[in-house]
Amino acid sequence: MRSPIEESVLSAIRPVPAEKDHIAQIAARIMGAVAGKGIAAEPMIVGSVARGTFIHGDRDLDIFLLFDPSLSREELQDQGLFLARSIAEDLAERYCEKYAEHPYISATIEGFDVDLVPCFRVESASAIQSAVDRTPFHTRYISARITPLVDDVLLAKQFAKGGGVYGSDQMTEGFSGYLCELLVLHYGGFSALIEAAADWKPGTLIDLEVHRTKDFTEPLVVVDPVDGGRNVSAAVSLDRMYEFVELARGYLENPSCLFFFPPERPACTREELVSRLKVKGTFLYAISFATPPFIPDVVVPQLRRSMDSVRGLLERNGFAVHSAGCEMFEDRCLLLFELTADKVPNARLHRGPPLWNRTNADKFFGKYCAGDIPGLSSGPFIENGRYVVEIQRKYTDAADLLRSTEILEVGLGRHVRQSMELHWEVFSGGDCWSPDSATFLSGFIVRKSPLARIHAGRTDER
Amino acid sequence: MRSPIEESVLSAIRPVPAEKDHIAQIAARIMGAVAGKGIAAEPMIVGSVARGTFIHGDRDLDIFLLFDPSLSREELQDQGLFLARSIAEDLAERYCEKYAEHPYISATIEGFDVDLVPCFRVESASAIQSAVDRTPFHTRYISARITPLVDDVLLAKQFAKGGGVYGSDQMTEGFSGYLCELLVLHYGGFSALIEAAADWKPGTLIDLEVHRTKDFTEPLVVVDPVDGGRNVSAAVSLDRMYEFVELARGYLENPSCLFFFPPERPACTREELVSRLKVKGTFLYAISFATPPFIPDVVVPQLRRSMDSVRGLLERNGFAVHSAGCEMFEDRCLLLFELTADKVPNARLHRGPPLWNRTNADKFFGKYCAGDIPGLSSGPFIENGRYVVEIQRKYTDAADLLRSTEILEVGLGRHVRQSMELHWEVFSGGDCWSPDSATFLSGFIVRKSPLARIHAGRTDER
Repeated sequence: MRSPIEESVLSAIRPVPAEKDHIAQIAARIMGAVAGKGIAAEPMIVGSVARGTFIHGDRDLDIFLLFDPSLSREELQDQGLFLARSIAEDLAERYCEKYAEHPYISATIEGFDVDLVPCFRVESASAIQSAVDRTPFHTRYISARITPLVDDVLLAKQFAKGGGVYGSDQMTEGFSGYLCELLVLHYGGFSALIEAAADWKPGTLIDLEVHRTKDFTEPLVVVDPVDGGRNVSAAVSLDRMYEFVELARGYLENPSCLFFFPPERPACTREELVSRLKVKGTFLYAISFATPPFIPDVVVPQLRRSMDSVRGLLERNGFAVHSAGCEMFEDRCLLLFELTADKVPNARLHRGPPLWNRTNADKFFGKYCAGDIPGLSSGPFIENGRYVVEIQRKYTDAADLLRSTEILEVGLGRHVRQSMELHWEVFSGGDCWSPDSATFLSGFIVRKSPLARIHAGRTDER
Repeated sequence: MRSPIEESVLSAIRPVPAEKDHIAQIAARIMGAVAGKGIAAEPMIVGSVARGTFIHGDRDLDIFLLFDPSLSREELQDQGLFLARSIAEDLAERYCEKYAEHPYISATIEGFDVDLVPCFRVESASAIQSAVDRTPFHTRYISARITPLVDDVLLAKQFAKGGGVYGSDQMTEGFSGYLCELLVLHYGGFSALIEAAADWKPGTLIDLEVHRTKDFTEPLVVVDPVDGGRNVSAAVSLDRMYEFVELARGYLENPSCLFFFPPERPACTREELVSRLKVKGTFLYAISFATPPFIPDVVVPQLRRSMDSVRGLLERNGFAVHSAGCEMFEDRCLLLFELTADKVPNARLHRGPPLWNRTNADKFFGKYCAGDIPGLSSGPFIENGRYVVEIQRKYTDAADLLRSTEILEVGLGRHVRQSMELHWEVFSGGDCWSPDSATFLSGFIVRKSPLARIHAGRTDER
């Protein structure tokens, strides 16, 4: 028995018959085109279209081109790309070459995003030569089992999307479509998944084929049914896992369409940003630089690393960081730092050697016996058996530090560094605001879990 | 061979013959007075006068009244105090009863501070009933050995005095006169002591009689020659020990009279205090309350404890403490706190339970799902698997916190709390200044080791 809420959600997310027919036609055209090329490759529709688990309005179509595994990787690449490109030439409005583990063609055909991916037609999943070779096995595994549970998969995917935890990319660190399918299969339905997820513990292990061949350290482990050595949910971070958990708890307690179709994330105005900072009493700084010309899965981990490194730089210089964030936009990236103070004292304590290390202690005394801060003849003193001296800070203003070249000396990641070496800007307070960053800033200054956002949406509705 | 510097110091600190005669006369009068009372007590001169190691101008005279150890403690107390009081009645300009481990009489006789201390005449130091019984053994031990080294003891004592490390009281945590005597005896002279002290390591062990009966944990261990289970330098803190060490190093490198007669500690004016704080960029707060009516050795440890507790209170409330200090004056006590900021943001992060503790996590969410900071609908978010919420600080201004009654809730020590419960005041910046605290404040704001003070004195001399 499906609840009225879920029925109404399903009526909105189930693809309509005309949509299914349309996709089937496009797929058939592409399959026919492959056959017509006379190249020894077997086309296969994979992904949610093949499994019937796509959501109304999805415009993604994945077609894999399976080649004989006796080819070399170079031959596969040459022949595969040649075939994919020639199909795109015939059918696509536009296309480009992309690169995951192998190159493939990303084309737009009748408004659909079609990926044409060459791979090896291996005998078993244990014989794969690269990750793409595994995909056909996933499709076969799911297709053979999912038919009675298609609606449940749609609900699970939409639930994850609504909660902002759908997607295994580096920025989201969430739940892939395949993972949603496996979870529904394992628990036997959407409701059972939600019931179970509400009690997930770190280290929860799901192994549908009971064939795990190694230990996994990720907080959620779903062993790939086609590969006992792979965790399908390896990308799911602890926080994304528990955002799913709290959404499950919240849904069980008080189900609502809002879980599937959440209120839009608010974008604050510049004035709202300024007034929120005033209420909080914190100080906001943004570092902005041109987005490196690489895919998000390459750039985003570097942004996170840069954020952590700059956070360390700030704290080493006495600026306590209340919170930090980063975002990759089309044209530029932002590192955000919310500080508890914008200025720090000129004087800071500098701890020297213990006095029982006579050589170093003498050197330290010699260096600082006349003090370090102009206008303050403050020599070293002894604390816990060590020399300590008050020295002058290099930066007493956070903006000066962030504008200094010291920022290029910390661990930024190669592409971020290359971009910043050309140019970066520092904004503070209201000047951090811009139309493109308004939503991100709003969520950064007033942080909420997915469930808290839904609660706030409910309150607004009243 | 004594250096000209040391000879000139000795000529200033050696008691002159008339002084010695005068003290001997007073002592003889007191001894005669005891004999005339017909009470079975043997008077004994102890301390530096008995040993000939007192410094020119010292006005202390310790006379112990040794009773038969077969008396009970009550009998000793009754008879001893009766005898001491009756001598004071006869000879003293004024006197009062004081209390260390036992009561004794502190009298002023011909301008000298004379302590009349009843104790037991025990057979050996191992048979002592209280600490005062040990003193006659110390005097006998030193008197029998120190004659050839009296000048060296005078130099050692004056060196420790000049460096501010003389005295085993709770505020100083330094070197007692008896300890100086033992160090000179052990090393065979002042110069040898200075040579050795320059290389003291934590855990340095000196055991003149090679009869240590236990392990000591203090940084400097000088086993009492009359009691193998007692560390004469138990009161010496690690910092006082290493202040002595650095003075020894400085003296070896560049001997000067300044080590014995240091420049007076400067007292800053109110304007100097304000301008130094401005240069440092720090924020000064003072808590002032009436000095509890107890001796410094009772009050000072409570002041230190109070200082640490209030420091903890400040830091728990987000105020980073740059340095803290305390001082006991005649009429009032001060706790000083130098902060890196006088204000902190309204918002602070409050970490809640991990989400895998479902009961507590639900409770936390329920409490905070509408946010905590008025004007900011900030619900909890998830970080490292835990709920975190931004809540409003109770105090954003340090003075408000220090003026609140929360200060009475922290560990203050009994007498400090009793005094503060009646009244305390909070001052900030220049208002912390007063004539009585000017020297203490000057040393607090510009901290210097003893050697750094001497260096500064040298620079001033040029």
